[in-house]
Amino acid sequence: MRKGYSVSAYQQLQQRFKRHGCLDDVLAVLNWDTAANMPAGGAEVRSEQSAELEVMQHELLTAQETGELLIQAKEECGQLDAWQAANLYEMERLWRHATAVPADLVDALSRAAQRCEMIWRDARPASDFAQTQPALQEVLDLTRKSAQAKAEALDCSLYDALLDQYEPGGSSAEVDAIFQDLAGFLPDFLPQVLERQARQPEPALPAGPFPLDRQEALGRRLMQQVGFDFGHGRLDSSLHPFCGGVPDDIRLTTRYDENDFVSSLMGILHETGHAMYERGLPADWRHQPVGMARGMALHESQSLMIEMQACRSDAFLSFLGPLLAETFPGPSEVWQTGNLARIYRKVEPGFIRVDADEVTYPAHVILRYRLEKALIEGDMQLADLPAAWNDGMKELLGITPPEDRLGCLQDIHWYAGAWGYFPTYTLGAMIAAQLFDTARKQVPDVEQRLGQGDFAPLMGWLRQNVHAWGSFMETGALLEKATGRSLDPETFKTHLRQRYLGG
Amino acid sequence: MRKGYSVSAYQQLQQRFKRHGCLDDVLAVLNWDTAANMPAGGAEVRSEQSAELEVMQHELLTAQETGELLIQAKEECGQLDAWQAANLYEMERLWRHATAVPADLVDALSRAAQRCEMIWRDARPASDFAQTQPALQEVLDLTRKSAQAKAEALDCSLYDALLDQYEPGGSSAEVDAIFQDLAGFLPDFLPQVLERQARQPEPALPAGPFPLDRQEALGRRLMQQVGFDFGHGRLDSSLHPFCGGVPDDIRLTTRYDENDFVSSLMGILHETGHAMYERGLPADWRHQPVGMARGMALHESQSLMIEMQACRSDAFLSFLGPLLAETFPGPSEVWQTGNLARIYRKVEPGFIRVDADEVTYPAHVILRYRLEKALIEGDMQLADLPAAWNDGMKELLGITPPEDRLGCLQDIHWYAGAWGYFPTYTLGAMIAAQLFDTARKQVPDVEQRLGQGDFAPLMGWLRQNVHAWGSFMETGALLEKATGRSLDPETFKTHLRQRYLGG
Repeated sequence: MRKGYSVSAYQQLQQRFKRHGCLDDVLAVLNWDTAANMPAGGAEVRSEQSAELEVMQHELLTAQETGELLIQAKEECGQLDAWQAANLYEMERLWRHATAVPADLVDALSRAAQRCEMIWRDARPASDFAQTQPALQEVLDLTRKSAQAKAEALDCSLYDALLDQYEPGGSSAEVDAIFQDLAGFLPDFLPQVLERQARQPEPALPAGPFPLDRQEALGRRLMQQVGFDFGHGRLDSSLHPFCGGVPDDIRLTTRYDENDFVSSLMGILHETGHAMYERGLPADWRHQPVGMARGMALHESQSLMIEMQACRSDAFLSFLGPLLAETFPGPSEVWQTGNLARIYRKVEPGFIRVDADEVTYPAHVILRYRLEKALIEGDMQLADLPAAWNDGMKELLGITPPEDRLGCLQDIHWYAGAWGYFPTYTLGAMIAAQLFDTARKQVPDVEQRLGQGDFAPLMGWLRQNVHAWGSFMETGALLEKATGRSLDPETFKTHLRQRYLGG
Repeated sequence: MRKGYSVSAYQQLQQRFKRHGCLDDVLAVLNWDTAANMPAGGAEVRSEQSAELEVMQHELLTAQETGELLIQAKEECGQLDAWQAANLYEMERLWRHATAVPADLVDALSRAAQRCEMIWRDARPASDFAQTQPALQEVLDLTRKSAQAKAEALDCSLYDALLDQYEPGGSSAEVDAIFQDLAGFLPDFLPQVLERQARQPEPALPAGPFPLDRQEALGRRLMQQVGFDFGHGRLDSSLHPFCGGVPDDIRLTTRYDENDFVSSLMGILHETGHAMYERGLPADWRHQPVGMARGMALHESQSLMIEMQACRSDAFLSFLGPLLAETFPGPSEVWQTGNLARIYRKVEPGFIRVDADEVTYPAHVILRYRLEKALIEGDMQLADLPAAWNDGMKELLGITPPEDRLGCLQDIHWYAGAWGYFPTYTLGAMIAAQLFDTARKQVPDVEQRLGQGDFAPLMGWLRQNVHAWGSFMETGALLEKATGRSLDPETFKTHLRQRYLGG
């Protein structure tokens, strides 16, 4: 009797989490619609719709019955197969995060973050950090309270409790070690790169305007080369490009600039990497926690795999050049592989993270990681943030932002309540390098086929070794299974050396 | 103590119905997305998403607590103001419909209708009624079962229970009387119209092609003339035009044909009438039952008010002509008011309802009403439907469909499970005539301003007398309050006589 009952506990949980997953889906469609379609006058009612769905999700997770079913299902987990067991594990993770924090604190934090983000939108262009400080202090205080509650439930440090929201199972001990390694490497490496670059000719820049319809047609063509299936997705435009929607109906957005197709093109390829990951998630586990993407580090690794590893390679650039020449008439020397490489791999220390190249990007992330960890752990006061930011930039990249608009005000994350997110960008870049390295070794023609615009060998390997696993394992275990070793900064450094110092 | 408690029962209901209303909203956005954006591969997961939300709505309504709260709130309804009391009344109506039918019957009917609709999609072009008959029989049987259950809960006839789903408070006794009147009028009237028309010159038809971007620009321009606010809505295209979305974010769709802008243009204006109604619903009652549109008859009256009463008037056509001449260059005689009137008011008995003119349209509806009532009440067998249809067409319009594709297979309604819907089309046309007649009398410059493309006087009157009332009253009461009398076929007949016999 008990056996029958407990299988039923798991099945009841699956039913409950299916509802939760469907609400995730619907929120994703609404979010895409908000960015891609919604008229301004729809904003207020859209917030109400989304808030109501989120409350329903929270109620589903925190209902007493959910906790009871989890206990029952765990008692009888011998009845479950490996995927069901992993699913149960992920259910409990979601439940733990949801139940750790009292509903009124969740609500207070969400409101404080919304308020602070609004203030930030005005304060950033005005470069006025002081204007944001009271609201940001409130966000920080409530975030620390929330982190405290989660840290107790997860038995970890405050910062790790936040990191776990974006990178399940991640730890600051691991991040510390990796970032320390990188922070030691970059100060030597960067000057060498810049020196070598200075010896090369300046890239010849393509002259615009570049008609938007041609940019779009080229973008669609390249998405299809990567493997994007327009029977299961769309491309639209929005102010901030992103990959939204659901695995069977991906909603990718981009932004066009008539005077510059360079960044928009790589932007589309970046989002297509995210899209391919979502599309490749295990179809048998749609709407279940184990069927979801593993975490933000792995997600970012898939976008950077396409954008950085594959699409900035010599092989792909040699395929891209003739396509660009066809699309945008003009002097042909611009489209030669060597010139394209000098455009797409230009290294230049700058103030703005989202404009940073592959080499300097980690420095931006390391800085943010150090600062947010200190703020969360209580080792730094908010009033000291602008100065600490500028000192860090000086130390890591040798430049000092002349104003906070180009410093601690540039990113939305903290102001919108996303603390613990930043490390995933650079972890993603390193995972991408390690996965690409292994894929090339295991599938010998990966690079040669990229030279023909054919992503099938690379994508086949990724689907089998990454996408299809959903959340079956934690990121570290997946990486070990796929590449035979844990995250290894050497592979990333080797990649940078080969690409930027020529071997 | 009891007082405090019972106000709280009503407030709890408001909370519960707010959630229900938000789910309505979300379903509306998903439906629009399905029609306007979704790639084919997204269909399966979209069904899952929508089904899950509908189950959640059904659970909200049928939960034991909802019934208990309704009893408590009614006991203390002396505490409520008039709008709250009306809201409570509408809550109970929704509850009564939802609880009347067992969940497994709801589910079986929904599945049967989906199956039948799929078969119909193949059978219609093949003109093969027999192919649909088994599936349609199942839909009919389950619809009758459902009607039986609702009839008991609502204490009315089977047909009235179905009609009540689309036209709350409507009754077949009233519809019988009105349709009998019209069915007596049309056989004399129609030949007079056709005879008069034959004496007039044939309309000169504009020659295409009509570029789609110009059609769209013109459509947007006219929507704005009517009063559509693009800050709270969009225009897109879809296979079947409709007005979707939510009151603060209307999603209107249309369909363009490069060789024919005539029907597309009136299509946009029709949907804009629906949109203006939704937009004008009482903002204080968003997401509450009393804040919703009253019913399908009144909804259709608002679209036909714009399309038929306003936009086919001489006054508006005299404004439209010069706009068309600007938009589509060509010989100017085509755009003269008299010629436009002959195009837009051409009367011609035909087989297809959706192509019918204002004069013959009621005959199509009366036929469907008689047949569906007989089928639901058990006075007719499904096997007899094709012959009965053709006999009815012969009697009402003097023509006999040569095949079922042009007869009983033409409309999706029955095959998709929408029984009891048809009468609302013609009730809507008659309500529109009566409201327009009153508006012209109460606001003397309504017509003159339409001649300047200015809908503000008409729309102001409609907003005040129709839109802003939401579901505060039943349709009949609203019409009496607005026009001083109940639905009166004479006004509609007078409108037809004036327009088609010249006074």
